[in-house]
Amino acid sequence: MSNLFRPVIALVAILVVSSAAAAETDPLSSWNDGPTKQAIVDFVTKVTDPESGHYVEPDDRIATFDQDGTTWVSHPLYGQALFALDRLSELAPEHPEWKDTEPFKTVLDGNQEAMAKFTEKDWFEIVAVTHAGMSSADFSKIVAEWLPKSRNPKFKRPVTELVYQPMIEVMDYLRANGFRTYIVTGGGQAFVRVYSKQVYDIPPEQVVGSSIVTKYEMVDGKPELMRDPKVFFIDDSDGKAVGINLFIGKRPQIAFGNSDGDKEMLQWTTGGEGARLGLLVLHDDAEREFAYGPANGLPDTKVGAFSQALYDEAQRTGWVVISMKNDWKTIFPPEK
Amino acid sequence: MSNLFRPVIALVAILVVSSAAAAETDPLSSWNDGPTKQAIVDFVTKVTDPESGHYVEPDDRIATFDQDGTTWVSHPLYGQALFALDRLSELAPEHPEWKDTEPFKTVLDGNQEAMAKFTEKDWFEIVAVTHAGMSSADFSKIVAEWLPKSRNPKFKRPVTELVYQPMIEVMDYLRANGFRTYIVTGGGQAFVRVYSKQVYDIPPEQVVGSSIVTKYEMVDGKPELMRDPKVFFIDDSDGKAVGINLFIGKRPQIAFGNSDGDKEMLQWTTGGEGARLGLLVLHDDAEREFAYGPANGLPDTKVGAFSQALYDEAQRTGWVVISMKNDWKTIFPPEK
Repeated sequence: MSNLFRPVIALVAILVVSSAAAAETDPLSSWNDGPTKQAIVDFVTKVTDPESGHYVEPDDRIATFDQDGTTWVSHPLYGQALFALDRLSELAPEHPEWKDTEPFKTVLDGNQEAMAKFTEKDWFEIVAVTHAGMSSADFSKIVAEWLPKSRNPKFKRPVTELVYQPMIEVMDYLRANGFRTYIVTGGGQAFVRVYSKQVYDIPPEQVVGSSIVTKYEMVDGKPELMRDPKVFFIDDSDGKAVGINLFIGKRPQIAFGNSDGDKEMLQWTTGGEGARLGLLVLHDDAEREFAYGPANGLPDTKVGAFSQALYDEAQRTGWVVISMKNDWKTIFPPEK
Repeated sequence: MSNLFRPVIALVAILVVSSAAAAETDPLSSWNDGPTKQAIVDFVTKVTDPESGHYVEPDDRIATFDQDGTTWVSHPLYGQALFALDRLSELAPEHPEWKDTEPFKTVLDGNQEAMAKFTEKDWFEIVAVTHAGMSSADFSKIVAEWLPKSRNPKFKRPVTELVYQPMIEVMDYLRANGFRTYIVTGGGQAFVRVYSKQVYDIPPEQVVGSSIVTKYEMVDGKPELMRDPKVFFIDDSDGKAVGINLFIGKRPQIAFGNSDGDKEMLQWTTGGEGARLGLLVLHDDAEREFAYGPANGLPDTKVGAFSQALYDEAQRTGWVVISMKNDWKTIFPPEK
């Protein structure tokens, strides 16, 4: 190599090193630069700076995240619905009567069109036979065994791999700034707790969700908590504000959602005094994930709808709408 | 001073300094030496030593404490009952009809003998008019204002000063060893959360307790959680095991109680695998606090009874019975 090129090589080396350093120091590297990313960074800077006039004590730094459609894929069906359907098929040989009983027949026939029209009562009957009648410990085991075998119909990957990398980064970023992060989901608390630590670095005690009744029983001289097919708490819509108060007892400073069921969580969060921030993920990326609203003229859906009314309330209230298409550089973590 | 005494003074100084240092380094200095204190120290040593064969990961170090009779005085009445009665008297002028309506009449007449015979239904009627019909935020304010004015009938001190110093030390000691400490009380979750941080250094999100229904409502365009006079969850007896699973989602390694209502919490705790410890405070100290059982021939009570059956189960199971009289050097923190 001639001496002539040495300075050029040195310059290139400096550029490579410094750009790597910049990537390393950006905790939100999967987010495109723009007003959305800036709103998150500005908020965190403000509440952690004692001189800002908006400082929040570390004890009060609570961040809540809806799960389905906010931190992981919820289309074409919720992850937990995929579990219920797989479980139903697994249990079917012990229940020959299901072949002629609705809603089980529709599931076993694989009639997806009819499934999309299931009522809440249909779903509850499916939940009752797949999520109850066993101990809490056994339920956790069943979910844990299912997770690696699970497959999202579009992506053909386990549900736990279909988390949104930008949201994982936000969780890490908030925790690095003294926040405690909570999942606040309309889904089953016991279901999400099985993988929350592994997937989100959120421990079971920081998962707020819907639950069925559990009963304390002595089974062969050992205490067990048995799962009963009765609704105990629905952590959705107004239930999210109630659940946050019940399980956390503090009002969040920042909350993330994606659908009409998150409205009250965002109202409750941003209705508090001081610096608060509400954010909503808009699924406007048919190519990389899914496109549904019906807000903003996107296709309508029965699974996690983001209505025009919610969109309008976001505009009025100052909630930040996250465009999956424009704000996210990548959607998923690299394949394992 | 003659040179003759100098070595003596030096020796005295050394003794004073080293005994002060020993006191400083004993995290359980309000506990008398003996098998009870030793059981706590041995347990903590075992679960924190990676070489012991009983090591517990910090994430799983959960300690639960009943409150009434375990961490603070609950006689002659529960602290929250004192609140309810004071609040009833305060509200009475707005409710002239109470003078002729039971159970309010009995309370307003100050008939303590009749109050001791109140049924659960009587108490619930009192709770309904004193604990419901306001927002969660207003309820917290009312409790916070009452606390410094509260007086225990025997000690004439605010209820928050009548915590047990040895239990405060155990909480600190466990936290210093990586445990997360929780209150798991049959009392009201919203009530205890008002002072848990100040009194026990336990944040609101680590208080598990009984609750009434709350409803999300918009009041003058602001979201409020309104307290309804309907039971939502009773965190007592089998409800304590259910509540621990619901709110924490992990089985405690160590649990402290004092009455029959804590039995299932201790069963659930010590029924788990690995190193577990259950402890029960026995109120056998009429002079410094109260004496009641009826276990061990102590006087019977309707407020937090420790039955002979529970005592026998403790013996059989290996739960440690803490004798207030023999195991505790001091009962209360110094007066402020």
